[in-house]
Amino acid sequence: MSKLNFAIAPAVEATEAPPIPRAQAWGREYVSTSSNASTAELLDLSQGVPRSAPHPDVLTSLAKTSSDPATARYGPILGEPTLRSAVAKEINIQYGIDDHEGGVQADDIAITTGCNMAFLTLLMVLCPPGKSSILLPLPAYFNQSMCLSLQSVKPVYIPCDPQNKFKASLESARSFLASKLGNTDTTNGDNDGILPRMICLTSPNNPTGAVYDHDEIKKWYELAKEYKVALVLDETYRDFVEGEDGESRGVPHRLFEEKDWRENLVCLGSFSKGYRIPGHRLGSIIASPALLKHLTTICDCMQICAPRPPQLALAPLLPDLRSDLLSASRQLSHRRHLFTETVNSVPGWSVISTGGYFAYVQFPSDYQYASSVLGLKRKKLGSEDVAKVLATKVGVVTLPGSFFMPNLKDDEAWDEVVGGDEIKEDKWLRFAVANVEDEVVLKLGPRLREMNKLMGMEE
Amino acid sequence: MSKLNFAIAPAVEATEAPPIPRAQAWGREYVSTSSNASTAELLDLSQGVPRSAPHPDVLTSLAKTSSDPATARYGPILGEPTLRSAVAKEINIQYGIDDHEGGVQADDIAITTGCNMAFLTLLMVLCPPGKSSILLPLPAYFNQSMCLSLQSVKPVYIPCDPQNKFKASLESARSFLASKLGNTDTTNGDNDGILPRMICLTSPNNPTGAVYDHDEIKKWYELAKEYKVALVLDETYRDFVEGEDGESRGVPHRLFEEKDWRENLVCLGSFSKGYRIPGHRLGSIIASPALLKHLTTICDCMQICAPRPPQLALAPLLPDLRSDLLSASRQLSHRRHLFTETVNSVPGWSVISTGGYFAYVQFPSDYQYASSVLGLKRKKLGSEDVAKVLATKVGVVTLPGSFFMPNLKDDEAWDEVVGGDEIKEDKWLRFAVANVEDEVVLKLGPRLREMNKLMGMEE
Repeated sequence: MSKLNFAIAPAVEATEAPPIPRAQAWGREYVSTSSNASTAELLDLSQGVPRSAPHPDVLTSLAKTSSDPATARYGPILGEPTLRSAVAKEINIQYGIDDHEGGVQADDIAITTGCNMAFLTLLMVLCPPGKSSILLPLPAYFNQSMCLSLQSVKPVYIPCDPQNKFKASLESARSFLASKLGNTDTTNGDNDGILPRMICLTSPNNPTGAVYDHDEIKKWYELAKEYKVALVLDETYRDFVEGEDGESRGVPHRLFEEKDWRENLVCLGSFSKGYRIPGHRLGSIIASPALLKHLTTICDCMQICAPRPPQLALAPLLPDLRSDLLSASRQLSHRRHLFTETVNSVPGWSVISTGGYFAYVQFPSDYQYASSVLGLKRKKLGSEDVAKVLATKVGVVTLPGSFFMPNLKDDEAWDEVVGGDEIKEDKWLRFAVANVEDEVVLKLGPRLREMNKLMGMEE
Repeated sequence: MSKLNFAIAPAVEATEAPPIPRAQAWGREYVSTSSNASTAELLDLSQGVPRSAPHPDVLTSLAKTSSDPATARYGPILGEPTLRSAVAKEINIQYGIDDHEGGVQADDIAITTGCNMAFLTLLMVLCPPGKSSILLPLPAYFNQSMCLSLQSVKPVYIPCDPQNKFKASLESARSFLASKLGNTDTTNGDNDGILPRMICLTSPNNPTGAVYDHDEIKKWYELAKEYKVALVLDETYRDFVEGEDGESRGVPHRLFEEKDWRENLVCLGSFSKGYRIPGHRLGSIIASPALLKHLTTICDCMQICAPRPPQLALAPLLPDLRSDLLSASRQLSHRRHLFTETVNSVPGWSVISTGGYFAYVQFPSDYQYASSVLGLKRKKLGSEDVAKVLATKVGVVTLPGSFFMPNLKDDEAWDEVVGGDEIKEDKWLRFAVANVEDEVVLKLGPRLREMNKLMGMEE
């Protein structure tokens, strides 16, 4: 690779690419070294992607809109009016909002080229580089950490509590905001020129699968409101919130019933998971038109418009696709239960939290001291060591928790984490359960037992 | 519109939306006030968009790839390998590079969600916010100016010379770089912490239509190389460079024959103009893999991948579409000649430069002193006044040159312009000639004569 005669921006140079290829390489090592074809079947639970094809009606509609010369022309910056209306309607139904009480309007919706873009544009709208921070629960989705690094926005990591199904600590967030912005009555904040601009919660969470209920989210809403920062909910996996009866789709939260939601709340969504069309690139933002006005400026420079054919293909179909969403949600719910049962039945293994596409799983504590078994010199094994052995030796590919702890190896970086030492323990793996069939989940039991044996655990 | 309880980033708040809707409103005013249906025909030459539908083979292919469940999955961050290879091949052919001499490789190509994104990501890769500047010819495409404003990158406007068909002044650029970075032998530059990181040339240009030939571009290349900044060529309209014989497609430049092009050069391209699919959102970047490695980080956070169906639809078709590109280029070349002839035949009107989709036209100097004719109190009329009258009274919609001079009204902002006072004269209009038929161009003559009469000019 030739060198360059010009400089790269330091923030970009300092931002590391996601470590996923490393995990995939472990999987390939298993396949290439296994002699027995039957044991060589790789169980890949590393990727948070939908397994099945889009609904046939979606494919038919895509063929039609893609070959229509009219959709080949530029479209409106914030999205097709038909799709913005259709999304608003679906949101009102999913969140149980009576239409006559107002609810979310088409003008509150923006369509972006995927949900990563939704997050990045929002970061640009709210957070001046070098002068702002955001509160982000740890472990964190690596694309979010990367966006912060690229934009020189300081992450203030709020530890999640493994004792509380990996929910972020509201008290840590509150004490940080109080120290930084002062009591809201006074102005004695510790101001170093870097001001918190938003709190970002992902629910259902990536990587932990944690699902925040309405009462929990409401507390975060009140906190954000008190300190005048935006509450940003990344709801990429909202279509997979389970209803209380385990059969219906659940209501993610009731914040849209707050009279002042537009002043405090932003919700991000994706079409990639529910409608299974990640390759077509569509995401959404629900926010006040007062915010979307500024988003228009950024979107004009970044995307001009999101790809039009998938927008126009989906708009008329959303009502009919409700039953498809429900059945996908039920299927995934069933798989999560099967997964939890299977994993928890293996000695030492324990599912700590699960929801949406993911489960966060604690491996046996004995593993941490099994370095001699593996002939390694390390004192204590971490999640990356364990994930590597699990993939290369028993053919189960997962992502180690350390991939979601951007600064685990950098002691100083822990200053950025507010409280909660327990999260520093490096003993979890992320399993993605959306991209596999039930049979694969059932095969996990024997594999994890094989792993236990390999790591020197007694039956 | 409800107010927000949180802050918007100042750079975003300070960035103005493009003024195009203002020009479009003038057009609507003409339509709604004209009583005679025949004179009411609006001649809209304001928008730089392709007029015709995509080639039928493209539409057929789009229908196929869009409805293929396989393309609904995520794709590679920098683009489909088949499209990257196909683009490399087309570039080598268009730029007349012998394959056996090396030439552009698939690894030198990145696919983005449109060319605006290509420019923005490049700005992010090269220019740290608040600490860098770029050299940009003035007049400038407003989305580029907006990107700079959003990213807090300082524009150093290099004036274009109306006496030289609106080519940017190389000497102004050189003297600025020398003052800022010192002679390359010494290090006595005037360093205020804001360093120039790139020179951006758009050829064929938006808005002026100026086409830089190889010898001119080569000088800019040498300058960029000497001062170790990137030369970025925005070649959105490269498919419409005329060959010397007026019949073939021209070679935009021969920089890819330089042994060290990867160390100094970046070229941006679009699929929206040549292949007429702006609604499908595809753009491209040609650069060193050493640069694209960093671009991957940004693209992963911004787009994950560009929409896959149009990538996979186009990849196998590019060789067959060469004849379509050639015929579109010839057609546009013919229209530009017709346009120039028509406009130049009207007293006082003069086409100063034209190429690609655009022509930059000087209106009669008498207009500047016609405020009394219009009953306006202003001393001197500018391009916005003239464009407004032209649209509302005679039904010809153009964009005033002032739309491409971001700081025309702000005297202090002129400090950012390096030399060249002539460019401050506000006497040009941008005509887009790609989105109209020849009949419309022919109708321009009588309309411009009508305008002359209206502005009090004698025949």
